[in-house]
Amino acid sequence: MEISKTANKSGAQGRYAERGVSSSKDEVHAVVDKIDKGIFPGAFCKITEDFLTKNPALCNCTHSDGSGTKSLLAYMYWKETGDASVYRGIAQDSIVMNIDDLLCIGVVGNAVISSTINRNAKSIPGEVLANLIEGTEEFLQLLRDFGVDVRSGGGETADVGDLTPTCTVDSCATAVLERARVIDASRIRPGLAIVALSSAGTCAYEPAENSGIASNGLTSARHEMLCKYYAEKYPETFDKHINPEFVYCGTAKLEDALPGSTLSVGKALLSPTRTYAPFVLRLLKEIPTERVYGLVHCSGGALTKSIRFGKNIHFVKNNLLPVPPIFRAIRDAGKTSAAEMHRVYNMGQRLEIYVEERDVATTLQIANSLGIEAKIMGHTEASQRPNGANHITVTTATGEVVEY
Amino acid sequence: MEISKTANKSGAQGRYAERGVSSSKDEVHAVVDKIDKGIFPGAFCKITEDFLTKNPALCNCTHSDGSGTKSLLAYMYWKETGDASVYRGIAQDSIVMNIDDLLCIGVVGNAVISSTINRNAKSIPGEVLANLIEGTEEFLQLLRDFGVDVRSGGGETADVGDLTPTCTVDSCATAVLERARVIDASRIRPGLAIVALSSAGTCAYEPAENSGIASNGLTSARHEMLCKYYAEKYPETFDKHINPEFVYCGTAKLEDALPGSTLSVGKALLSPTRTYAPFVLRLLKEIPTERVYGLVHCSGGALTKSIRFGKNIHFVKNNLLPVPPIFRAIRDAGKTSAAEMHRVYNMGQRLEIYVEERDVATTLQIANSLGIEAKIMGHTEASQRPNGANHITVTTATGEVVEY
Repeated sequence: MEISKTANKSGAQGRYAERGVSSSKDEVHAVVDKIDKGIFPGAFCKITEDFLTKNPALCNCTHSDGSGTKSLLAYMYWKETGDASVYRGIAQDSIVMNIDDLLCIGVVGNAVISSTINRNAKSIPGEVLANLIEGTEEFLQLLRDFGVDVRSGGGETADVGDLTPTCTVDSCATAVLERARVIDASRIRPGLAIVALSSAGTCAYEPAENSGIASNGLTSARHEMLCKYYAEKYPETFDKHINPEFVYCGTAKLEDALPGSTLSVGKALLSPTRTYAPFVLRLLKEIPTERVYGLVHCSGGALTKSIRFGKNIHFVKNNLLPVPPIFRAIRDAGKTSAAEMHRVYNMGQRLEIYVEERDVATTLQIANSLGIEAKIMGHTEASQRPNGANHITVTTATGEVVEY
Repeated sequence: MEISKTANKSGAQGRYAERGVSSSKDEVHAVVDKIDKGIFPGAFCKITEDFLTKNPALCNCTHSDGSGTKSLLAYMYWKETGDASVYRGIAQDSIVMNIDDLLCIGVVGNAVISSTINRNAKSIPGEVLANLIEGTEEFLQLLRDFGVDVRSGGGETADVGDLTPTCTVDSCATAVLERARVIDASRIRPGLAIVALSSAGTCAYEPAENSGIASNGLTSARHEMLCKYYAEKYPETFDKHINPEFVYCGTAKLEDALPGSTLSVGKALLSPTRTYAPFVLRLLKEIPTERVYGLVHCSGGALTKSIRFGKNIHFVKNNLLPVPPIFRAIRDAGKTSAAEMHRVYNMGQRLEIYVEERDVATTLQIANSLGIEAKIMGHTEASQRPNGANHITVTTATGEVVEY
């Protein structure tokens, strides 16, 4: 079980803990730490021997994740506007949270995915399920159109009204890959460039502006941004145990314009998570596997995610991409510290590529050819800590220096 | 997406619909019916070409399901007794709901499984997660001890308190198998014996009596059996939209003795779902694949599940196994009709094996060698309907005849 995501998913401190995200999981770690770490224990995902076909040249990865509480934004948007097609984006979120983690070990095909929708049939009708199912099929077709061969194996829809007042949308992806083609992030070493790919804007395979929000931090973002109107109108969208002062404590309505963006607040919070699959597919064709030292999907943990990979590394991230409008709005709404913002939200960069200097130009060129903004956001050097532990220094877009 | 399970999961008519299980999904079926049915369209699970390794002699199946609302019984039992180990059974339920469906297409190994726990961190602490995770690992080890090679690929734990007041426990299993070894239930034809395997008792790999309840119909069973005490004490365990008269409208407490059983009502409702994997592993070694016409896991739909398989078939089920005490108690508590009982609950038989007369003795002997009660529960003949549609006649243990 990958537990680390949990604590980070929505921010674990202070007012965030009020909203039901725990920071202490000692009992769980005591269990998880005993479980086998697989055959590439320092890779981005758990990789096992090839249980599926017993081929010693191959390995397997199976990965579960979902859209989390982002589906609640789709619920409110649909109830306010009657437009259930926003759930297509939720289907995409659920898929990309799996596929883009798998990219980071080198999976760009030979994968199957299955979805699980747990719903309250009284609040989530067939129209919503239809959009979730069609959204899944459409997005997988888009991936295949770009050469990324991920197939749907089906899924499950369960009516469990006693478990959820709305619905959860989760997916599981399983892949088989050649051991010789595995990207093993444990190989991250001092002296590498860190190239960052933007989560925002409009890339070659997106129909509209992407806010960059992706699928992490949405519990916080939703409550910090949106106003009490939603607490009164949609009590089914929040935990009754949260202190009311932390429930929808912002000022925005979904239809409000987001300053600096073509999107409304609602559409910005609902921007479907961008996949980097077409990019990674090309990257792994143009740069030899052994020179791709690491790919880090900045999901839970955001700019601190990389701290788990490599040994004795100081990650210097001092040249970030511009902060997209949605993150400025979230920061201002919650008066959230820079340290917290960069630990919970990707802040504009959601994929980090660790390469040698000689491969930077190719990396940037591939990103640009797909309409994805990219730049050298930093580098790795030897740990500055007395015990040699990995650490991260982020210099924010406003010049603030944050240490993790 | 396999949708058929949904409508059946907890019983879809009358008072059951009150509890949030819908019977009408026209919009969903309009979508699902357009989706590719795979390469064995009449098999028990959706089977696709081998997307994972592109071997034309192989095929893939990926399958999602979970413990549904059974986790709420574990929640209340744990809160009442302090014993969180009941969640180990929930982990087993979630796995077996996948593995035993896969058995029905011939999967007895070469499978990986991943779990997703969506929890409210305020109600579900690390102690519960630890039991779920350890329960998963222990149960997979038990399967391997019996020669069934299913491996854990990890999992996800998400803190989503705005989506659930307690927790959902789901799994996804992916398998690769030889096309020549697929059990294709579309081959069910007239003239076969139907052997039924018991869901109850204590088989060779179970540490205690199994009530046979498995993981279907638990929304109904919980509300019909248990008394108002639980409505007052655990409002987090039911949907606020249910008419109060249908909430915990029985007379039992969890610690009450279940008449005719060594188990309490609570332990009976929580009996971990038996797996038939050790049985199917041996069956497929001893009977040639082409003579195993069908295996039907009586999960959602129970004794009516088989109606989807084969063509022009009349399923005659007139020699059922004895009804285990838990189902008698549920029937009496809800004054539920025989038709409804046999459509929602397995009533004591949870696996049907469709074989020729000459293979019946071997089938029974394998079951008996594992301590699983088994008998010929009926046979197939040509459809008696004018349009040739599949239909089922069940003669209940009390002699009532029910037509589906």
